[in-house]
Amino acid sequence: MSSSAHRLSPLARTRCIEECIACAQACTACADACLSEGMVGELTKCIRTDMDCADICTATADVLSRHTGHDATITRAVLQTCAMVCEACGDECASHADMHEHCRICADACRSCEQACNNLLGALG
Amino acid sequence: MSSSAHRLSPLARTRCIEECIACAQACTACADACLSEGMVGELTKCIRTDMDCADICTATADVLSRHTGHDATITRAVLQTCAMVCEACGDECASHADMHEHCRICADACRSCEQACNNLLGALG
Amino acid sequence: MSSSAHRLSPLARTRCIEECIACAQACTACADACLSEGMVGELTKCIRTDMDCADICTATADVLSRHTGHDATITRAVLQTCAMVCEACGDECASHADMHEHCRICADACRSCEQACNNLLGALG
Amino acid sequence: MSSSAHRLSPLARTRCIEECIACAQACTACADACLSEGMVGELTKCIRTDMDCADICTATADVLSRHTGHDATITRAVLQTCAMVCEACGDECASHADMHEHCRICADACRSCEQACNNLLGALG
Repeated sequence: MSSSAHRLSPLARTRCIEECIACAQACTACADACLSEGMVGELTKCIRTDMDCADICTATADVLSRHTGHDATITRAVLQTCAMVCEACGDECASHADMHEHCRICADACRSCEQACNNLLGALG
Repeated sequence: MSSSAHRLSPLARTRCIEECIACAQACTACADACLSEGMVGELTKCIRTDMDCADICTATADVLSRHTGHDATITRAVLQTCAMVCEACGDECASHADMHEHCRICADACRSCEQACNNLLGALG
Repeated sequence: MSSSAHRLSPLARTRCIEECIACAQACTACADACLSEGMVGELTKCIRTDMDCADICTATADVLSRHTGHDATITRAVLQTCAMVCEACGDECASHADMHEHCRICADACRSCEQACNNLLGALG
Repeated sequence: MSSSAHRLSPLARTRCIEECIACAQACTACADACLSEGMVGELTKCIRTDMDCADICTATADVLSRHTGHDATITRAVLQTCAMVCEACGDECASHADMHEHCRICADACRSCEQACNNLLGALG
């Protein structure tokens, strides 16, 4: 009933794993940098969203890494959620990007990861 | 535009976090026990699904634990994915439940976590 | 050369897993609650230590859950690190415990987890 | 009392984070590939060690990413444990490296991460 995820292009899958890992790392680093800002009280939403995004991106990378014989329904749900969290975190970080370089870097990583998830979703059909 | 998750009943949220954590632990233990079975070659799908479910349940518990001021859209997506993975893992484990006690225990934890996620989704509206 | 961890008392191991999981959850919740305090700027060390402790406790619980045929050298190193991080996080949270209930709860969870790790280390010999 | 980890060379720290992340990914992929081998029954120790190593490397990368104002005692303990688990996983994978390409790749990633952890430990003093 569901086509198997391992029919996916290995390149698109590998690319998406790398984007998820890079995004998780950018989010963890951004949360830490936010905690060091004098205005940390105004960045708490950013910190929380960073942490959510890091958790989801890490879980997504792990699920994608276990690809052989995998159920496409799970892969699709995980990718959709990851794209959504990356969009939310990218929006949040983008709104501070002119003030904080770490937010600009993180916003870019989120956009790039969101795109990679959507590309892989498109390939999943 | 989206109501905030922290309006959720604290009890339903706490209950769901506990179920996610218990399910992650049951899945990790089930995967390890499967690796010790003589017929491990027939349990590889179960092991992979256990690991996916553990990763998603852990991420879900962490997202739910960062509740204050949170975006309901993310919470909803994460809960839906968690319920879906728990259903898939519960089905997989249930199919071996008569042969392996660890799969029976894990199937029960997955069903219970799926139900808790769906209850919280209902409360989110 | 190294005795295998699965000779450990199942009860002591299970107890330690439960303590690690409870401590990780208390730390994640404490970090989130700290982010909601007006004086968040004075709690950034607490938030970081909470996050480190949550990460290490989760990894420790996962390693302990994969016990069959396991190498005691890894188990011992992981338990020692976990006990050390729990001590540090317990000290940090205890220093705010009279002002923030979440820090008091988290300090208790850290102390209890540190004790469980040390008990299991003692049993490992 | 303890010197702060943020005095570390940013390059050595960043390098170590990247090695930890790459190693975690190699371990997760190796465990999945082992599960697809016909002789999976003979690879269960490798799968478990892969999973332990992935968990510890991910936690280490996260702790290193939260560097500002950090306690060197925790950083040192985490790095020592990570180096030890990478050594154990590298040894295990190396013993199958002539039969399984994924084990050879994983052994290389483990050796490289072990070295990066030891380099950073040396810099911590």
